[in-house]
Amino acid sequence: MNECGKLIVVSGPSGAGKSTVISRVMEADKSVVFSVSATTRKPRSGEREGVDYFFTEFGKFEAMIENDELLEYAQYVENYYGTPKAPVLENLEKGLSVLFDIEVQGALQLKQQYPEAILIFVIPSDFSQIEKRLRTRGTDSEEKIRQRIKTAKTEYSMALNYDYIVINDDPDLAAFEIKSIITAEKCRANNRKKYLDEVL
Amino acid sequence: MNECGKLIVVSGPSGAGKSTVISRVMEADKSVVFSVSATTRKPRSGEREGVDYFFTEFGKFEAMIENDELLEYAQYVENYYGTPKAPVLENLEKGLSVLFDIEVQGALQLKQQYPEAILIFVIPSDFSQIEKRLRTRGTDSEEKIRQRIKTAKTEYSMALNYDYIVINDDPDLAAFEIKSIITAEKCRANNRKKYLDEVL
Repeated sequence: MNECGKLIVVSGPSGAGKSTVISRVMEADKSVVFSVSATTRKPRSGEREGVDYFFTEFGKFEAMIENDELLEYAQYVENYYGTPKAPVLENLEKGLSVLFDIEVQGALQLKQQYPEAILIFVIPSDFSQIEKRLRTRGTDSEEKIRQRIKTAKTEYSMALNYDYIVINDDPDLAAFEIKSIITAEKCRANNRKKYLDEVL
Repeated sequence: MNECGKLIVVSGPSGAGKSTVISRVMEADKSVVFSVSATTRKPRSGEREGVDYFFTEFGKFEAMIENDELLEYAQYVENYYGTPKAPVLENLEKGLSVLFDIEVQGALQLKQQYPEAILIFVIPSDFSQIEKRLRTRGTDSEEKIRQRIKTAKTEYSMALNYDYIVINDDPDLAAFEIKSIITAEKCRANNRKKYLDEVL
């Protein structure tokens, strides 16, 4: 039975291991489409244009803001990140759910426009894991790492506005939690009113 | 990591196939304890004292009401059903979740006292299945079946006060939905505040 598509927003500080968890969710649930963000940051090794991000020049990104082509956007560690509006609306119209990997500011912007959006914050059980993972990744300078840790703390302070907190010490367990949240949200009484209406 | 115990209330009209679904949930999740209700109705074939119900005389049940020993109770198709208070409070203190198989009136009573209780309504996707299952069960007279169908319709009208509606056309799928709801509820941001507090 086709049930309404959901907006599922996953955020988490750099180094929370979010991307791995999200790929496992996407592999397991084919009714969920990943929203590819636009960003002005440079691609990391292995990242693909149109799959991981739409890598976009600063000027072009600012034109998208100007033309209201973004669902949300934010500036984060010197770069812009944002969600192109058109593909999201197309997928929702098809009844598909859309999963967003966006940072806290953008997530809260989206929730204001779409209060039914489901906000999930991914963190390790122990904060020290974040620093450890950033260093292991080896993609950032010492200064950037320090900046990311500071930003992470700010994000933690905004996470109480989220609906769910998923603990990522084991990506399979974290993906299991996110899949359970998506299933549970589809079972919300508001979504399934039609089964009652048929009788009443 | 020990997380707070939940009150999980499962209701559904007679013939919705609730009991089978609940047994599958209980088999799969050992952190959930079943709350054995007291009832004045006669045991059905295969039902065991203290496992399925505490089968209780009318007079004794009314004394339990009088002595405030019940968390909720209701009269339903000529019989009393209620939840003895003591074992529930003991399990919650141990950090275990408690699953209640109670009808709509009792569920809404419980929700008033414990707003954090999670209310799940189990129904087949097609109402005609209810009548079919009641007849197949063969435990009720024609008059009782008609009464149960009338009661079922009243219950449907109260189900919008529930948090979740689980569709039971396949008991394994329905059990999967309930397990997902329990997992998702444990991930609620309010429950996991402690992971943020450590950093803030």
